[in-house]
Amino acid sequence: MADYRSKFLNVYSILKSELLEDPAFEWTDASRKWVDRMLDYNVPGGKLNRGLSVIDSYKFLKEGQELTENEIFLACALGWCIEWLQAYFLVLDDIMDNSHTRRGQPCWYRLPKVGMIAVNDGVLLRNHIPRILKKHFREKPYYVDLLDLFNEVEFQTASGQMIDLITTIEGEKDLSKYSLAIHRRIVQYKTAYYSFYLPVACALLMSGENLDNHIEVKNVLVEMGTYFQVQDDYLDCFGAPEKIGKIGTDIEDFKCSWLVVKALELANEEQKKTLFENYGKPDPANVAIVKALYNELNLEGVYLDYEEKVSKKLTATIEAQPSKAVQALLKSFLAKIYKRQK
Amino acid sequence: MADYRSKFLNVYSILKSELLEDPAFEWTDASRKWVDRMLDYNVPGGKLNRGLSVIDSYKFLKEGQELTENEIFLACALGWCIEWLQAYFLVLDDIMDNSHTRRGQPCWYRLPKVGMIAVNDGVLLRNHIPRILKKHFREKPYYVDLLDLFNEVEFQTASGQMIDLITTIEGEKDLSKYSLAIHRRIVQYKTAYYSFYLPVACALLMSGENLDNHIEVKNVLVEMGTYFQVQDDYLDCFGAPEKIGKIGTDIEDFKCSWLVVKALELANEEQKKTLFENYGKPDPANVAIVKALYNELNLEGVYLDYEEKVSKKLTATIEAQPSKAVQALLKSFLAKIYKRQK
Ligand SMILES: [Mg+2]
Ligand SMILES: [Mg+2]
Ligand SMILES: [Mg+2]
Ligand SMILES: [Mg+2]
Ligand SMILES: [Mg+2]
Ligand SMILES: [Mg+2]
Repeated sequence: MADYRSKFLNVYSILKSELLEDPAFEWTDASRKWVDRMLDYNVPGGKLNRGLSVIDSYKFLKEGQELTENEIFLACALGWCIEWLQAYFLVLDDIMDNSHTRRGQPCWYRLPKVGMIAVNDGVLLRNHIPRILKKHFREKPYYVDLLDLFNEVEFQTASGQMIDLITTIEGEKDLSKYSLAIHRRIVQYKTAYYSFYLPVACALLMSGENLDNHIEVKNVLVEMGTYFQVQDDYLDCFGAPEKIGKIGTDIEDFKCSWLVVKALELANEEQKKTLFENYGKPDPANVAIVKALYNELNLEGVYLDYEEKVSKKLTATIEAQPSKAVQALLKSFLAKIYKRQK
Repeated sequence: MADYRSKFLNVYSILKSELLEDPAFEWTDASRKWVDRMLDYNVPGGKLNRGLSVIDSYKFLKEGQELTENEIFLACALGWCIEWLQAYFLVLDDIMDNSHTRRGQPCWYRLPKVGMIAVNDGVLLRNHIPRILKKHFREKPYYVDLLDLFNEVEFQTASGQMIDLITTIEGEKDLSKYSLAIHRRIVQYKTAYYSFYLPVACALLMSGENLDNHIEVKNVLVEMGTYFQVQDDYLDCFGAPEKIGKIGTDIEDFKCSWLVVKALELANEEQKKTLFENYGKPDPANVAIVKALYNELNLEGVYLDYEEKVSKKLTATIEAQPSKAVQALLKSFLAKIYKRQK
């Protein structure tokens, strides 16, 4: 498969230039400069997996047919809409989580002249998505479906963010609120819809498909997104820091991690007490006690078991798909994450 | 004209119930309770002028024809979408402005268990708009135009908010950035589009009109919205506190008010120096010096002059409108604000 990364990055520059000349607003020099810098700081600095996967997915759906330059551009533009959506959520999430760094640099709101203006910058990022869609897709038969799709996925992401926030309200650290059911909900809504389903749904719309005919594709992708986050939670504790690129702090941070909800499920009364007393404390001694308990409960084995089961189930559902192109697409998504170490 | 207030309030309850059962999300008791409380706290407590003006406008466009129950419901739903949009912007604006109260109660983010979760609540408010539109307008021929309209107006409002924020960055109080041109831009984008144009545009779409054929209507309404904000700035200093319901603090707050930009325009070098030295300080002595300067420059007279000119110009443009119904609609808007004292 051709590497579209440089084309993709090129499309970012085009979209940015267009946004900075949007005729719906009377720009001043200062406002154009502000948005220019804000976009460069927040939009393109991630791994771009989500954005790039629109074009990858579209390739699969075209079953080897050569893509035209215009198709490549449009798929890239949709990919960037997803990156914009993610930037919007991350800028605001960092404010809400009082975070310090993001992608190896200070969070946007931490910059001296930004501060709480970052809230409105998040709003602007979100508003750029319909601007991009209107400019490049207004005449497409699937335009209204694109708008509905982005609206629905944004609503789901914000709803997932809400349960995450109200489950872990500051000063009310209460482990008894955590369960597998709530973990699944948070992950599915906050992450899986926009990261896994949205790119493929964009590609399906571009291919002229009706999304109502692909509910199973949605289900598979949402389940894959959930599996991806379970891996993330697992690697935070059991992964190699040199591979995952950071030292996990989910235990210290009182995160609603798959590991802690599994531990709560498997623990006896005494072990539960240990968890309640030690989870979410910054002291390394407390962290070590939690990790020892995870080992006692054999969470590594429990995880490997989960991974086997979920990937088998996913494979079976994928192979039941009527379209070979869709099968290939979904299999390539699964192959990218199966047994990943980073 | 019939009073639709109680019908309008009734529609709020219906829309809220529907949102709390939205099938695109798997609700928990806690999340449903959270959104319920958040909506009641932030959405219906204002004057509801913007929301109610959708149905008023639609009445005018129907030229005396009786409205069906369904038409009333739909116009109310669009009115509520505007109130939701306003709530979204106000919740976030209060965070950015570090405000304390709103509509006579603490700002939402100031409530003990809310805090920065209010950022995501603002996002949720915004996301409710397309949910309402999809549920009630998906099959209408003007559905896609409604989505485009709300998207464009939101973009303009956020852009106006941006120039307001970057013109008055904390710690950089610089009066030389203020001018009539920047004041007009802030007001037009931050307030006029969503407060004056949006309700009428909703009514036009419901009537089957194409908004591209009503650019003049848009211009008149945006100019009216600007005039409305100039009044607001004027009344903040020269209005009767018992009528406007508060004691103005624009001078203390270093606001980019029409009065200060007019003063800057009219002042000689010495008077400018006085303004620079005294504007934006909390001490009543500084405020008194600014007010004395406003009187020296006869800003009351300058304002009355502006009011006469702008209302004459608006009346002339309105009377040049081809449709009598549109004329009547716009005249009623103007009559509501002309020479208002509160
Ligand atoms: Mg975070
Ligand atoms: Mg967070
Ligand atoms: Mg993690
Ligand atoms: Mg404010
Ligand atoms: Mg403000
Ligand atoms: Mg005011």
